[in-house]
Amino acid sequence: MIVSAPGSKVLRASQTGLARLFAPQSVAVIGASNAQEKVGYQLVSSLRKFAGRVYPINPKLDQVDGHRAYPSLQACPEVPDLAILAIPAAACPDALAAAAAAGVGGALICSGGFGESGEPGAHLQRQIKHTLNNSSIRLLGPNTVGFTNPVSGCHACFLPTVQEFAPGHLAIVAQSGGVNLTLSFLARYQGIGLRLGIGLGNAVDVDAGDVIGYLADDDHTRVIVVHLEGVRDGRKLFDAIVRASAKKPVIALPVGRAQVAEFAQSHTGNLMGSFAITAAALRQAGAVVVGTTDAAIDAAAAFLSRRIPPKANPGVAVLTAQAGPGLIMLDSLRTNDVAVPPLADDTVKIIAGLLPPMTYMRNPVDTGRPSPTFGDVLVAAARDPAIDAVLTFVLDEPAALDAPTTLAKAAASIEKPILFGTLGLETSIEPTLQRLATLGIPGYRSPDRAAQAMSALVADSKARYRRTLPSSPPRAAFAIAAPARDEFAAKALLRSYGLHVPQSVACTTQTDARAAFAQLMKPVVVKVSDPAIAHKTEVGGVLLNIRSWPELDAALSQIDSIPGDRTHRGYLLEEMAGPGLELILGAKRDASYGPTVLVGLGGIEAEALKDVSIRLAPLTAADAAEMLNELRGAALLDGWRGAAAVSRPALINAILAVSQLITEQPNLLELDINPLRSTPHGMMALDALMVWQD
Amino acid sequence: MIVSAPGSKVLRASQTGLARLFAPQSVAVIGASNAQEKVGYQLVSSLRKFAGRVYPINPKLDQVDGHRAYPSLQACPEVPDLAILAIPAAACPDALAAAAAAGVGGALICSGGFGESGEPGAHLQRQIKHTLNNSSIRLLGPNTVGFTNPVSGCHACFLPTVQEFAPGHLAIVAQSGGVNLTLSFLARYQGIGLRLGIGLGNAVDVDAGDVIGYLADDDHTRVIVVHLEGVRDGRKLFDAIVRASAKKPVIALPVGRAQVAEFAQSHTGNLMGSFAITAAALRQAGAVVVGTTDAAIDAAAAFLSRRIPPKANPGVAVLTAQAGPGLIMLDSLRTNDVAVPPLADDTVKIIAGLLPPMTYMRNPVDTGRPSPTFGDVLVAAARDPAIDAVLTFVLDEPAALDAPTTLAKAAASIEKPILFGTLGLETSIEPTLQRLATLGIPGYRSPDRAAQAMSALVADSKARYRRTLPSSPPRAAFAIAAPARDEFAAKALLRSYGLHVPQSVACTTQTDARAAFAQLMKPVVVKVSDPAIAHKTEVGGVLLNIRSWPELDAALSQIDSIPGDRTHRGYLLEEMAGPGLELILGAKRDASYGPTVLVGLGGIEAEALKDVSIRLAPLTAADAAEMLNELRGAALLDGWRGAAAVSRPALINAILAVSQLITEQPNLLELDINPLRSTPHGMMALDALMVWQD
Repeated sequence: MIVSAPGSKVLRASQTGLARLFAPQSVAVIGASNAQEKVGYQLVSSLRKFAGRVYPINPKLDQVDGHRAYPSLQACPEVPDLAILAIPAAACPDALAAAAAAGVGGALICSGGFGESGEPGAHLQRQIKHTLNNSSIRLLGPNTVGFTNPVSGCHACFLPTVQEFAPGHLAIVAQSGGVNLTLSFLARYQGIGLRLGIGLGNAVDVDAGDVIGYLADDDHTRVIVVHLEGVRDGRKLFDAIVRASAKKPVIALPVGRAQVAEFAQSHTGNLMGSFAITAAALRQAGAVVVGTTDAAIDAAAAFLSRRIPPKANPGVAVLTAQAGPGLIMLDSLRTNDVAVPPLADDTVKIIAGLLPPMTYMRNPVDTGRPSPTFGDVLVAAARDPAIDAVLTFVLDEPAALDAPTTLAKAAASIEKPILFGTLGLETSIEPTLQRLATLGIPGYRSPDRAAQAMSALVADSKARYRRTLPSSPPRAAFAIAAPARDEFAAKALLRSYGLHVPQSVACTTQTDARAAFAQLMKPVVVKVSDPAIAHKTEVGGVLLNIRSWPELDAALSQIDSIPGDRTHRGYLLEEMAGPGLELILGAKRDASYGPTVLVGLGGIEAEALKDVSIRLAPLTAADAAEMLNELRGAALLDGWRGAAAVSRPALINAILAVSQLITEQPNLLELDINPLRSTPHGMMALDALMVWQD
Repeated sequence: MIVSAPGSKVLRASQTGLARLFAPQSVAVIGASNAQEKVGYQLVSSLRKFAGRVYPINPKLDQVDGHRAYPSLQACPEVPDLAILAIPAAACPDALAAAAAAGVGGALICSGGFGESGEPGAHLQRQIKHTLNNSSIRLLGPNTVGFTNPVSGCHACFLPTVQEFAPGHLAIVAQSGGVNLTLSFLARYQGIGLRLGIGLGNAVDVDAGDVIGYLADDDHTRVIVVHLEGVRDGRKLFDAIVRASAKKPVIALPVGRAQVAEFAQSHTGNLMGSFAITAAALRQAGAVVVGTTDAAIDAAAAFLSRRIPPKANPGVAVLTAQAGPGLIMLDSLRTNDVAVPPLADDTVKIIAGLLPPMTYMRNPVDTGRPSPTFGDVLVAAARDPAIDAVLTFVLDEPAALDAPTTLAKAAASIEKPILFGTLGLETSIEPTLQRLATLGIPGYRSPDRAAQAMSALVADSKARYRRTLPSSPPRAAFAIAAPARDEFAAKALLRSYGLHVPQSVACTTQTDARAAFAQLMKPVVVKVSDPAIAHKTEVGGVLLNIRSWPELDAALSQIDSIPGDRTHRGYLLEEMAGPGLELILGAKRDASYGPTVLVGLGGIEAEALKDVSIRLAPLTAADAAEMLNELRGAALLDGWRGAAAVSRPALINAILAVSQLITEQPNLLELDINPLRSTPHGMMALDALMVWQD
């Protein structure tokens, strides 16, 4: 069945389930009421602008808000696409099951009192889950304000004000209904219309990944903002954002930088998970991560105008009539790693012919008080080969500059984003900003906000560029390995994946150990090998710098003297690596995101400072290179204070090997190489610990 | 002479110079014109609302914009308080000298073309400086849009729109005239009136420190926002903020996180200096440091309502009708180190009687859809002994909550700040926010902005609390020391200031060295002592772990064999300290801020990560304690991974000793203790380098 949403193209069959939910032709409101203070009334009245059919369901009523009422779903003249359940939580499981049985496409439960509130709510949620598992009905909620669809007028939301939202091309996907409305109002204040605004609530069925996948294929959705409190199926979300961000910008607002888990769980029953992994995964997938609701909408305004094409390091021209705000914008951009490159000599020559002397023209371009040449200066800067977008700020002086006309003319000859910041008397700048909005030029009422929005455009361009880079050269795939539960086996597995490990010999007897010692380069380290001993150092089971036969004898005796059952005890003899910078390299199978890779600087300071970078596996070489740049102490890699530089290609290869390992070995839960040492012979895994599924 | 500013109390005599400049009774505009496009006309017409006397000066004109014109300053019926120079840069030095000679109190030069633009502008600036050095006239500028004084109507600013600014209690002091206007417009949009808005420009005379000192004593200024691009006299600024912030909040917006120095210098001729020192000094002085113009004004709105009294760790109650925005606010507060403590059982009991079950009541308090009890819940939370301020957010539902009435009633019974965030249809929330503004309750159109403003209130309370802490116990003052140019002398000076240094003996002969070796605890380190050798390790002049006579002989020979003139060569023998965490501790006489103290973690990782904290000396013990908390790797101090914890009191004492040393020794330019090692015998300065003024 193919369903066409009003005002949209026919949606793809794969998204049919969600199309019946979010863009229905017919809606039933179960528990409809004529009591104006009741949700059962509000949910009907919110549909006043809806062009489709509305069926209030209440056996006691003939009519609700002008619509004929029906005693049951079955009594309706057709099977509705969407059933809105305006009934108490306890009645929802049966009503949902009935709707599913009737062939309803989607359902919405607004009520709270489910998984977020402990038993018996959790029991109700399990009953709902059962219905979902055994039918094709899709459910939004429970515990949400619902959704608003200003394009079709289908506002499945009990807040009457949502009927005022203007249609447009921004889609909002929020974990929380309150944040959906927060973002929707902020968009409204900027004159941005909505394609769809969704509050996911407890997300028992439809989650952020589902909706983003649906919106990726909806051609009328031009920008997606997603708000996340906790991510249950991170890998699905990741894949959906990868697919969506290739077509349209995805702006992500993850909550949970600080410790807020307890309140979050009381809210939608979600566990927060690790903020660091979520933020890293969102960026890796191609989303632009922002920190506030305001920044999300400011970025959306910029993206609705135009994206910067994929580029490794896009350049921004800053054009300002006032140097102070220009300096603030420059500082903001550079702090966000946005390049503000010097303009080419040819460009500066053109600009010098347009501006009075004594202004700064290399970028930023300080025009001084704007003159009739302002638009030409803007075009000249925008045409510079190093420039991909223009950020401009002018204090409002209508007598000096007719901003809309000037910018419109300039924009017509430039296919690059122009963001415009201005401030002035409301009576003058409001019409200016409105005119600019109709021309597709986003305006901001502060230099900081304009600069932050520009940083979002640049982050999106860089993210897409990374995703255009070729994947790593194909490596031979390995068979599923047996769990490597001790250091020797773990290192052998690492070696098979191309990692360097010290030359080592596992010995069961002193005779074996002496034979091994004869062959290895000195000095060696002698370690206890015993499945019962996890922390070798703590029991005196690691003896360093063994160079002579007497030292070897002493070491072997020391290991023999460690208390405990000696049935499986042996010796591990290993050549010692030379000195060098130490890193940590690890991998973990995250409950939500699946295989992840972590790299960080070694040493207790770096560990205490949590100077690490995380990505979802599998990684490309570009991902791995970027992880290294992300380390705050990255300067150490390049030879700090005269030390030898670390070979970045060798380090990237080690990261890729670990990425391949965790990706290919489904039973490997955790891998910890600590330290990974940079030696003249390559990156060397000096110790390795693996945790396998039992 | 005491000058009274219109609408203000009589200003103190000490500020007279600035009062004649910023709150004049009479103003002359030199270079007045009737040509409307000229600055000489605009500067006269901007004075239309000015209640005092206006004297346009132009020998060719009889009248300008309705005022009688005069051929010269001397021809005016009185000596004007303020002379505005609307003439080209080249004519300014003579005109300023004439005004000074005539007894004018203050002058304003708007033109650029001075120190910011290279020679010959720098020459003009030196001429101006000469006049200032030889008279009592005070100068604002050059290279600024001037200032606006909506209270008296004295707008010494060529932008016509400034006449629309409403009078109020916020003072803005901006390095850049453009940023002054940026902040003024942002304030206007929030309904905040201005006491004074100043662009400092090149600040040849009047600088941020002067103006803040002036505003500190102006009772009608209730909040100060200061924007800084570079700070030439940091110590003066520091002292002014210390004095001002004791009386009223000071919000600081320093620019220069990123590398922007070149453009900044082209702008006002200012060198940027170190952002880290500026930000640290501003905080230490009691200012609240913000990152954007928007955040500055959002904070100002909160402060105009009420400050939180000085407190070590004020508690905030978060009261929200929608959990999602509440979670965003909680995350923002906690990320900014703001305490959101659990409410007392008694408070929760009261709230439980007011709200439906199933909502979260411990803090945040999730009211669910607001009911008539909302105000009572707010009062109950505010009265909790752990709570010092309330942050509340409600999506606008006029039918459910009459926010202004409810909040006004609540506010009347609570002497604690209440910040209110809301979103809704403009037609509904604009009147709400306006009514709240008249009641002194600041409103914000987003949860993030409300939360950030609350973080500013808390930062101010904590800063004032720190300044109420007693100074460190008085220590005996030391005499000015002779420059300690070698390690032995430097350590001796450190020891006299109470720092621990290894037992050491400086020896000129091998015989002395052997005698010293006999007495010292082994092992010792033997170092070359030679004023010509700065980097001992690099020439092989540091020999560690010397335990035996043969080792000593070898070490002494090694030092003798270092090439170069041996006239002043000797040996330094030192007992070696045991292992322990290493830090760096230093002091520097900054060109702008004077004596500063720096502490950081040792080791190359921490060094590469620039994990340091800076303060201006002299420090209190509380300052020193806070520096340690500020280190990102502070966890290392408390015994990371089983290592011994560092004695914080001992470390604080070491920091205070260095603070006293740099404060008392005016010729000490730089001190670098690297490493400072935590040993069982205390914090030990293992190496010390001092740089003294020649």
